Amino acid sequence: MGITIKQIAELCGVSIGTVDRALNDRPGISEKTKRRILEVAREHQYRPDLTARSLARGRTMTIGVVLFDLYNRSFAQLANAIERRSRERGYIVHLTLTGKDPEMEKNCLRQLVQRKADGIILCSVNEGARFEEELRGLLTPIVTVCNRISDRWPYVGIDDRGAMKEAVGQLLRKGYRRFVYVCPPLADRGRVNIHTQEQRWIGFREALEDGADAVSGGQGKFETAVIAQRDYLDALRRLDLAAGTGKTAIVCSCDAYALEVMHDCRSRGLRVPEDVGIMGFDNIDMLKYVSPRLSTVHYDMEEFGTRAADSLIAWIERGEAPSVPSLAYRWIEGESV
Amino acid sequence: MGITIKQIAELCGVSIGTVDRALNDRPGISEKTKRRILEVAREHQYRPDLTARSLARGRTMTIGVVLFDLYNRSFAQLANAIERRSRERGYIVHLTLTGKDPEMEKNCLRQLVQRKADGIILCSVNEGARFEEELRGLLTPIVTVCNRISDRWPYVGIDDRGAMKEAVGQLLRKGYRRFVYVCPPLADRGRVNIHTQEQRWIGFREALEDGADAVSGGQGKFETAVIAQRDYLDALRRLDLAAGTGKTAIVCSCDAYALEVMHDCRSRGLRVPEDVGIMGFDNIDMLKYVSPRLSTVHYDMEEFGTRAADSLIAWIERGEAPSVPSLAYRWIEGESV
Repeated sequence: MGITIKQIAELCGVSIGTVDRALNDRPGISEKTKRRILEVAREHQYRPDLTARSLARGRTMTIGVVLFDLYNRSFAQLANAIERRSRERGYIVHLTLTGKDPEMEKNCLRQLVQRKADGIILCSVNEGARFEEELRGLLTPIVTVCNRISDRWPYVGIDDRGAMKEAVGQLLRKGYRRFVYVCPPLADRGRVNIHTQEQRWIGFREALEDGADAVSGGQGKFETAVIAQRDYLDALRRLDLAAGTGKTAIVCSCDAYALEVMHDCRSRGLRVPEDVGIMGFDNIDMLKYVSPRLSTVHYDMEEFGTRAADSLIAWIERGEAPSVPSLAYRWIEGESV
Repeated sequence: MGITIKQIAELCGVSIGTVDRALNDRPGISEKTKRRILEVAREHQYRPDLTARSLARGRTMTIGVVLFDLYNRSFAQLANAIERRSRERGYIVHLTLTGKDPEMEKNCLRQLVQRKADGIILCSVNEGARFEEELRGLLTPIVTVCNRISDRWPYVGIDDRGAMKEAVGQLLRKGYRRFVYVCPPLADRGRVNIHTQEQRWIGFREALEDGADAVSGGQGKFETAVIAQRDYLDALRRLDLAAGTGKTAIVCSCDAYALEVMHDCRSRGLRVPEDVGIMGFDNIDMLKYVSPRLSTVHYDMEEFGTRAADSLIAWIERGEAPSVPSLAYRWIEGESV
């Protein structure tokens, strides 16, 4: 475990205070002595005791992270960015995964607080006054990501509502008049926190309302179906995508669903986009390898992670919650609609 | 932060010892009293102080994890499994990522030791006597995964050499006689730890040697090229895949390279497998969405993570390094060769 300050002092024949000056780059020491001390420290692999130092500051220099899982490609990218940024800033990451289980999430939060994490980056499935009360009770800085909870906790995300509205606007301009909206999490609406999914869902409806006026003829002009259940592929198979007037656009609230839907449609002999259009949301990096290239909404998951870490650390170190502007997004014109 | 044992004792009008019996399910307490105590504990959200408890056992109940990154799909699956299993066993995960930087890896290891992790799951890019000496110096149980270091540290993995040998045997049976082996990490051979990649590389060569005898005519019968550089796509483009006799099989040492290669070949108008065959290794879950389905080698990353966590915890709790048998693998017959 390396050499101690005391041992360095003995080896260099100087006082512990002098060694401390050299190691922490404080004045009151000659360049020559400083060089010698740093040399000895390096030789003997001296390592400052972070734990002791941070405890002195009343911190553990740890950041707790609470996500659903790492199978979701976006979360893997997010966790990667949070870890890198946190370590750059001198913090180490406690990673916990909830599998979208509300109770598991509460356990993770409690564990992180018991282990004295200086702050927590949380993607929550919980919501409501009671939960907010519990969060306040943790007395720990918390930055939310992916699912907003309330104004009390900084939220790192994009304007999902506006982004989905713009994206569906693109489909209308392409002439689509029949839509199937695929969003399994809507099945849990009211029971768990699906903030982001709800925002996208509102954006979808707003786009059609505005579109209805634009193309005139009113809402009736669009045939829409909503699939809000876990077995969304079964539900989709029961729909007659060929019926009615014109081609159907299957609007998926996440790329993950879009990939499943595209996979399923093609296994049924439906050509994308010739027979049916498919749109995703998230622009996960794996899309690069999937053809036809999925049309989707892009935002920078890297930036999410970096912002979340920076915002949390700002709160930890300055003592007050920072406000985070919503991040940028853009439509990705693929080949699937 | 919930109620204390003392407060529960007061609320129930019993001794602290009685509350302790109830909470830790020890004898010497009536069912009725126990039920009342647990009820009060639940109502007031009592949380045992894990930190105190583990410190008493001389443990922090934390497991350090050192991986390259989470972009590599296999690592995301691995980290997910390690986290889940560790938490099931009462441990929390410190996640650190090295980006394959040897010095960063050493920093991560030091940090984890400074933070008193009970043990570490390590995917290393470092190797050699000097590094092993440093690892021993950490005085911490370490289980290696993905890259073996030495017999001193349990290694969770498959027989990569045998697996690649079998896979290439499949290509020989399909009639392939021309091969391009794509493995960028081989460029770092001797400089960093590429154990797994080296094993696969040996397996490839062994398959061709055996094959040469089998199909008779000797080694000369096969045309082989090896691409061991970072800009492997450029190198691949410089090869004339059409030349010579028969179709070429591009054997990629990881699915990640195979996906890039397939993407690149198709962008050049090469049909897979009609014009060129492509094989991967790892069977990452995303392959499901990529067509043609990549032929590859499957092993259970979930099991890697679970085994790694279990082996490390066994070492932590029993005090001696367990031996881990190498895990199962199987050839996945796709459509790409």
